[in-house]
Amino acid sequence: MRTVGLLGGGVIGGGWAARFLLNGIDVRLFDPDPEAERKVSEVLANARRATRRLMLAPQPEEGRLTFVAAPEEAAEGADFVQESAPEREELKRSLLAAADRAAAPGVVFASSTSGIRPTLLQADMARPERLCVGHPFNPVYLLPLVEVVGGDRTSAETCERAAAVYREIGMRPLVLRTEIDGFVADRLLEAMWREALWMVADGIATTEEIDDAMRFGAGLRFACMGSFLIYRIAGGEAGMRHFMAQFGPALQWPWSRLTDVPELTEELLDRLAAQSDEQAAGMSIRELERLRDDCLVAVLQGLRSRGYGAGEVVAEHERALLTRVHPTPATAIDESAPVVLHATVIPAEWTDYNGHLHESRYLQVLGDASDALFRYVGIDEAYLADAGNYFTVETHLRFRAELAAGDPVSVAIHVLAADEKRLHAWLELRRADGEVAATAEHMYLHVDAATRRSGPVRADVLANVRRLAGAHAELPRPAAAGATIGI
Amino acid sequence: MRTVGLLGGGVIGGGWAARFLLNGIDVRLFDPDPEAERKVSEVLANARRATRRLMLAPQPEEGRLTFVAAPEEAAEGADFVQESAPEREELKRSLLAAADRAAAPGVVFASSTSGIRPTLLQADMARPERLCVGHPFNPVYLLPLVEVVGGDRTSAETCERAAAVYREIGMRPLVLRTEIDGFVADRLLEAMWREALWMVADGIATTEEIDDAMRFGAGLRFACMGSFLIYRIAGGEAGMRHFMAQFGPALQWPWSRLTDVPELTEELLDRLAAQSDEQAAGMSIRELERLRDDCLVAVLQGLRSRGYGAGEVVAEHERALLTRVHPTPATAIDESAPVVLHATVIPAEWTDYNGHLHESRYLQVLGDASDALFRYVGIDEAYLADAGNYFTVETHLRFRAELAAGDPVSVAIHVLAADEKRLHAWLELRRADGEVAATAEHMYLHVDAATRRSGPVRADVLANVRRLAGAHAELPRPAAAGATIGI
Repeated sequence: MRTVGLLGGGVIGGGWAARFLLNGIDVRLFDPDPEAERKVSEVLANARRATRRLMLAPQPEEGRLTFVAAPEEAAEGADFVQESAPEREELKRSLLAAADRAAAPGVVFASSTSGIRPTLLQADMARPERLCVGHPFNPVYLLPLVEVVGGDRTSAETCERAAAVYREIGMRPLVLRTEIDGFVADRLLEAMWREALWMVADGIATTEEIDDAMRFGAGLRFACMGSFLIYRIAGGEAGMRHFMAQFGPALQWPWSRLTDVPELTEELLDRLAAQSDEQAAGMSIRELERLRDDCLVAVLQGLRSRGYGAGEVVAEHERALLTRVHPTPATAIDESAPVVLHATVIPAEWTDYNGHLHESRYLQVLGDASDALFRYVGIDEAYLADAGNYFTVETHLRFRAELAAGDPVSVAIHVLAADEKRLHAWLELRRADGEVAATAEHMYLHVDAATRRSGPVRADVLANVRRLAGAHAELPRPAAAGATIGI
Repeated sequence: MRTVGLLGGGVIGGGWAARFLLNGIDVRLFDPDPEAERKVSEVLANARRATRRLMLAPQPEEGRLTFVAAPEEAAEGADFVQESAPEREELKRSLLAAADRAAAPGVVFASSTSGIRPTLLQADMARPERLCVGHPFNPVYLLPLVEVVGGDRTSAETCERAAAVYREIGMRPLVLRTEIDGFVADRLLEAMWREALWMVADGIATTEEIDDAMRFGAGLRFACMGSFLIYRIAGGEAGMRHFMAQFGPALQWPWSRLTDVPELTEELLDRLAAQSDEQAAGMSIRELERLRDDCLVAVLQGLRSRGYGAGEVVAEHERALLTRVHPTPATAIDESAPVVLHATVIPAEWTDYNGHLHESRYLQVLGDASDALFRYVGIDEAYLADAGNYFTVETHLRFRAELAAGDPVSVAIHVLAADEKRLHAWLELRRADGEVAATAEHMYLHVDAATRRSGPVRADVLANVRRLAGAHAELPRPAAAGATIGI
């Protein structure tokens, strides 16, 4: 997939734009709002920041974003169209019908609607069979869930192809068999949200207290497991039936306001607004967004370390990127000098309370450069799975200059020697002005994927390593290589 | 607080026992179930495992657990009583009344009930003013939330004192002003749970699909923020009033089944049980518990790294433990061997997608140990501000074994040499079983606070450094110290 057409560039449409662009896909976006360009660029800035923090894999080159003047232009030349207009059925229907006329046959359409049935949305389309719902969650660039639902006239292939698009950009499609207002997730959220509004209306608790009742308790579980699995565990060895026997009766107790919806009186709206202001404690929406994203990144990183739930989705996407985002073949790199295969910008969270890069993060940048070297000599995902990988077994670091948040840096690698198992290299971490901030003398050892012990590199990779070592043998040896530490 | 009395040792009572014991408090537990001792010991094993992984601070010595034969015995000599019997009002009332007669005056009682009003529970107590609700969430040893609610006859002091007890054991009390069936959290959870049961009953989605609709999407947000703050952010700069104007109308749409509760027919119970079995995919409850706990630990660690929400509660408790459980002053350290001044547990967010500690984080643990060494030789806050600090200018690292999230590690430091500006040391990063995971040869240089250039260490600190270097000169020199890297 090369290009997507987006209809709508609000919080959700902007989030889609960010997720597609950061996965290397070009975006053609239509939004009549004169502020759309500014709004999308703000979402994109947040998304770049969060994605760079989250992903361990190299990112593809960002796609190109084009703003267009009509829905037809967004759909022209697009391989996939995602609609994220405001939740007004008529508006969505007319946008989808217009884009449908301009899109090539076989292009799949999805609507981001939070709850309008796709059967209603496809009513005016000439090719209704190609529309399904693809309902994401905010922020779209971080949360992997997308609910995929077809309408009466949607073809089965459409839902499958939309799901494949979402998987390609690191998401987790949940394909529903049955069309229903609100789909699944929003029905759960709405039920809870109504109950929360009742509690504010009845003066039981403030917005902040209600939020605290979730995020310090059950909300932590919901990041990992849903109610059914959680309650199964609570029921113990006797299983779900036992749990229902024990706790089913409570369903009949007066524990929630079921009968209706609180009236949104001026008084209730005032109370909600005032309590929400107090809860935000003067933080702007931009600050709250960054706080939310930082916490989501941390939660996703945590779950990735356990290989579970949304963390596993992130890890899978990283593995896929490792294969897809391959540096251009060896020919494009000048091997007669130390090779520069990795460049980055120092992120703020890598710095200490003085604003300087923490010593351990020097090694992280150097490690990322090592990974780039391994990919360069031919270690791809298949090789990692079947053959093995290089590991750093030893390094001699010299810290020479401080680095601060925002400093652009690059790493040049000089291969000093190599044999069938080992690779000895000299790395220089350089600032944009050429000053060397750190040097490292690394010894990498090749470890066999099957035995988990050191073993020879595969011949094709070894050939690349030897070619590079041969070229670098012509270079002057760094004066400090091979030195010892001592007083 | 020295001793608590617990009434009930099921999943919740066992969780309380674990949280109190692991905070160094003795527990007297009454539960007529002949299996209680086994059940509590299983919960305690899970809790030890999870707490050891979660907490970076040193743990106090575990309290003593005693099983007693009557509620009166649990309350005798206790400083606090927590009731966690099954959700039957009569049973809870009689247990509380019996324990009330035996407890010393001034001892506070709390009930773990999920939703029964404290006014009902205190009815038979001779001292009803000392009972409040203290409603925790499973697993009690990991989730910080506890809802504190008084009844008609509860004194204000009772709620305050219960909240103080919970804070002492690392929890986050949410003191509610108004007594209401189901309190706050369970009203939210019940509303969602009923909707979920309807979707299973109507055949819309399976238990696994409904769980996935939460844990891959909004559930990740609930670990950080509740609905009100999340929706405020979604509403953008215009605030909560704008959000309600935009999304309020959807409340009137048919997005949830409000009118009643699904009947728990045999057919529905069979369906729930069968789908839940399929979802569990053969994992036992013990395995699911550990999976849940591992994920919760990772989520809490992630939030701790951002200093937010439940992560901040954990961090505060760690800071309190650091003061309470403090290593004795320098005199207690044996300088005739390498000094162990830093021990920690590998947090999940330091690991890569294979679950192994990232190479850069080895250097972080070693850097933290270096900081501990500097504090040990007398570099305190005043010294840092006025005199200067040591910086690592050079290090030679050898990676010898993989480390995973949850591994307890410590660092032993052997000072090899020192002069008025420099300190040369050999560091070993060791696992709990003594295996050396990495070694490092560090050269530290003292930098003057005023000039930001290298300068001599102050005399008192230098004396400590020289004493340590002198003692360590008697030790055999590590064989690999001073070695070079090469093929």
